[in-house]
Amino acid sequence: MVSRDIMRSSTRDFERYYNPKIGNEVRLDTNVNVLGSNPAAMSFLSGWKGDINGYPNTYSDDLRDALSDLYGLERENFVAGNGSDEVIDVAFKTFTEFGEKCAVPVPSYVLYDFFVKINGGDTVEIDLTDDFQLDVDAFLKSGAKVAIMPSPNNPTGNSFHEKDLEEILSDFEGIVIVDEAYGEYSDRSMIRRVNEFDNLIVVRTFSKAYAMAGLRVGYAVSNLNIAGMMNCIKIPYSLNMLSEKAAIAAVRDQDFIRRSHALVSDQRPRLDAGLRALGFETYPSDSNFILARSPVDHAELVSGLKKKGVMIRDFGSRRRTENCVRITVGSEELNTMLLDKTAEVIGECR
Amino acid sequence: MVSRDIMRSSTRDFERYYNPKIGNEVRLDTNVNVLGSNPAAMSFLSGWKGDINGYPNTYSDDLRDALSDLYGLERENFVAGNGSDEVIDVAFKTFTEFGEKCAVPVPSYVLYDFFVKINGGDTVEIDLTDDFQLDVDAFLKSGAKVAIMPSPNNPTGNSFHEKDLEEILSDFEGIVIVDEAYGEYSDRSMIRRVNEFDNLIVVRTFSKAYAMAGLRVGYAVSNLNIAGMMNCIKIPYSLNMLSEKAAIAAVRDQDFIRRSHALVSDQRPRLDAGLRALGFETYPSDSNFILARSPVDHAELVSGLKKKGVMIRDFGSRRRTENCVRITVGSEELNTMLLDKTAEVIGECR
Repeated sequence: MVSRDIMRSSTRDFERYYNPKIGNEVRLDTNVNVLGSNPAAMSFLSGWKGDINGYPNTYSDDLRDALSDLYGLERENFVAGNGSDEVIDVAFKTFTEFGEKCAVPVPSYVLYDFFVKINGGDTVEIDLTDDFQLDVDAFLKSGAKVAIMPSPNNPTGNSFHEKDLEEILSDFEGIVIVDEAYGEYSDRSMIRRVNEFDNLIVVRTFSKAYAMAGLRVGYAVSNLNIAGMMNCIKIPYSLNMLSEKAAIAAVRDQDFIRRSHALVSDQRPRLDAGLRALGFETYPSDSNFILARSPVDHAELVSGLKKKGVMIRDFGSRRRTENCVRITVGSEELNTMLLDKTAEVIGECR
Repeated sequence: MVSRDIMRSSTRDFERYYNPKIGNEVRLDTNVNVLGSNPAAMSFLSGWKGDINGYPNTYSDDLRDALSDLYGLERENFVAGNGSDEVIDVAFKTFTEFGEKCAVPVPSYVLYDFFVKINGGDTVEIDLTDDFQLDVDAFLKSGAKVAIMPSPNNPTGNSFHEKDLEEILSDFEGIVIVDEAYGEYSDRSMIRRVNEFDNLIVVRTFSKAYAMAGLRVGYAVSNLNIAGMMNCIKIPYSLNMLSEKAAIAAVRDQDFIRRSHALVSDQRPRLDAGLRALGFETYPSDSNFILARSPVDHAELVSGLKKKGVMIRDFGSRRRTENCVRITVGSEELNTMLLDKTAEVIGECR
């Protein structure tokens, strides 16, 4: 049998990703939209009569046009992809040579290290400050070719200070990817500023506020020069035609995004207060989830809730988020249910 | 403005892929199934009522189960992906280091060089023999880490001799990818033999005989060891849930595949004879297309046909296929129409 020495050296210790056994649990572990599937996309799909035999448009021009209308940019500012995961992968593929350093904050999205290494890069972990903000100097001194950071950050929930992002963008010798996966829940975004910077790539997804994770759509926004390089590297036709068309319908229904934002803005303080009342230490969030340090053992909390039919995400074994869990902000009913069951589990643990 | 020196060195001269302006032309340039969209997939989609808010299964287990039933293999022999393009990309990502050589036959699929180089590899072109078969010695002496070859070959149409594939698989020091994109039209396949070899990866697509290019589904088949490595490297959830479910419906309708094979087997000799009668030199095909050397200038032929509403693919400027075009085998009506219009264009060129 061939050993793992045949693999790319940066990836030989890789295992598979989070793939929990799912029953009928309520999912408060993946931060999808609790309002349910995107209504405009669903309406498009239910009325769709078409042809699946031909290839999609090579670079998803229609979706890129819809996005350029939304943001007041040009089609060629956009790179459309099969989930934001694809455009992140393309960014590393486009701009890194083997062994080059890529700067990733800790704590942040666990898959960034995966994307760096599958593309042959070397991850440089840069700790966030005590209040989970960017350590600008550490990024600038990292020697990295590419830096990636989510804002709002996952799993901590907060947005990074715009002046810190500006300072990194101005002084960093390389590409800076700002992953706005939760950007629709925040009032801040760097998208409309992509033409100001030589080196800014903003990434967005349709999997969170847009409520269509099942269809895998994402995009990158950058200046025409950088976006043009990425489009030459991305796999042609990678976005299937149904997902592209559903995403266009979703982009044109901004009312759903406003309602999603409003629900989270209303409910997040209530969930936060409820968790604090149960003894959790919570962190400020600009997203549709809250990071909270558990008053009981994180693993017992997560497995206790799963037995009661609710899934939340466990970050308690990772550095900087010791004993923490990440909980999606639900509707009023979901939050009440979550808080009641959490109280029961805490009672059983004591 | 940042120059292209910021890009991965192997890709700095890349341009975008084939993206022709399309009107209402009949497409005989992309080798999709002339029977039209996959009926089982269309039936599934038209009746679908579901949820798009949740993530798909991380590794497309249900599709991999359907494929294992079809071939009598195990789920873990399969890697499912967003088109065969994704699984080819994953294979190079998994098994090549920067600068390692990858062997690609000439002529063959034009995107292989793209996949090698986006992943930092160095393409070694290996000429096919005069009758477009594999030069086994040249592969064995290439010093390549990965070899990739389509069988049936695109754009020449013929399958490679199984004994040549066996000899390469046994003696090649590295991974051998056999891309059976047109495998449903051939009576030969290496899929059921993946467990015999340490180093064989077979790739298949739903874009050709399965008639669902618009949905982007493909897969790799290998022994459990190699497939396991690839699944650790592929992007989780990369196959969207609608495409996965549509593909499962399509796998269960093998009658459509048999009808597609029968149509091509009936019509290919007729198209071949018609082209020869017009002065083309044709090559033997085991696929749903024919490579043919034009009796008039290839570019004039292709543009003349486009003006008359038919697209065929021009390979006439490439080495080894000088003045050749590739034409999809159509239905009887399509072939008659193609031959009539081709005769007109030839007349106008003279």
